[in-house]
Amino acid sequence: MDTQTSTAEVEEGRAIDALAFDVFARACPSRPTLEHVTGRWGILILGGLHEGPMRFNALRRRVDGVSEKMLAQSLHALERDGFVHREAQATIPPRVEYRLTPLGRETAAKLLDLIAHIEANMAEVLRAQESYDRDRTGA
Amino acid sequence: MDTQTSTAEVEEGRAIDALAFDVFARACPSRPTLEHVTGRWGILILGGLHEGPMRFNALRRRVDGVSEKMLAQSLHALERDGFVHREAQATIPPRVEYRLTPLGRETAAKLLDLIAHIEANMAEVLRAQESYDRDRTGA
Repeated sequence: MDTQTSTAEVEEGRAIDALAFDVFARACPSRPTLEHVTGRWGILILGGLHEGPMRFNALRRRVDGVSEKMLAQSLHALERDGFVHREAQATIPPRVEYRLTPLGRETAAKLLDLIAHIEANMAEVLRAQESYDRDRTGA
Repeated sequence: MDTQTSTAEVEEGRAIDALAFDVFARACPSRPTLEHVTGRWGILILGGLHEGPMRFNALRRRVDGVSEKMLAQSLHALERDGFVHREAQATIPPRVEYRLTPLGRETAAKLLDLIAHIEANMAEVLRAQESYDRDRTGA
């Protein structure tokens, strides 16, 4: 029975590996994962943790403007998806640290590349916004 | 007066170019732009348009699940930021096409790289989710 279960699990694993995931399809499980990673806070949390492990309050200061509730929620989603590891050390008081998993590090590197690209092109974006607003007001 | 205005504009442009943008700062204008690009629909719109110019309804079919209202809103934000160009052709009936600007194309390429990375690692994400849920239910 144990052997059968474990064979079934291996086969299930292979079946998952063979699936084609497509974020453009509304029911694909890759879509919520993409949203956790690129969400308003997810992207800044992963980018922040790329600098090194952090405790909750340090991360909250780094991700300027995030509420305690939203930080906790976003961290849970990223932990469940396997991007963030939560480590509770058995000290008094307990010390909880968050750090990226290897998959989280790879993902954060891509997000930081995107962030750097946006920041580097903000002058062009601001000029586009001005031009758009000028055309709209007919000035 | 014209010369002064134009000098002022050039200087303003230089001042913008010299600014340091930081998405981690809550008031930085790069933060809403990052959100337009990586938002639930922005990322799929830019990824979809990377395949080529599209009319509104074709784009709506490509970005499976988006409402007409959300697609219109997201396109406006991306057009205002200079990632998407809206072209209305003077035909009867008028034909409106959306296509990426050069900045939009560069940005879409980075987003598609991120999408491919997430899709390629979904098997690992699903296993992490299972393991997380198993630990939580104590099974």
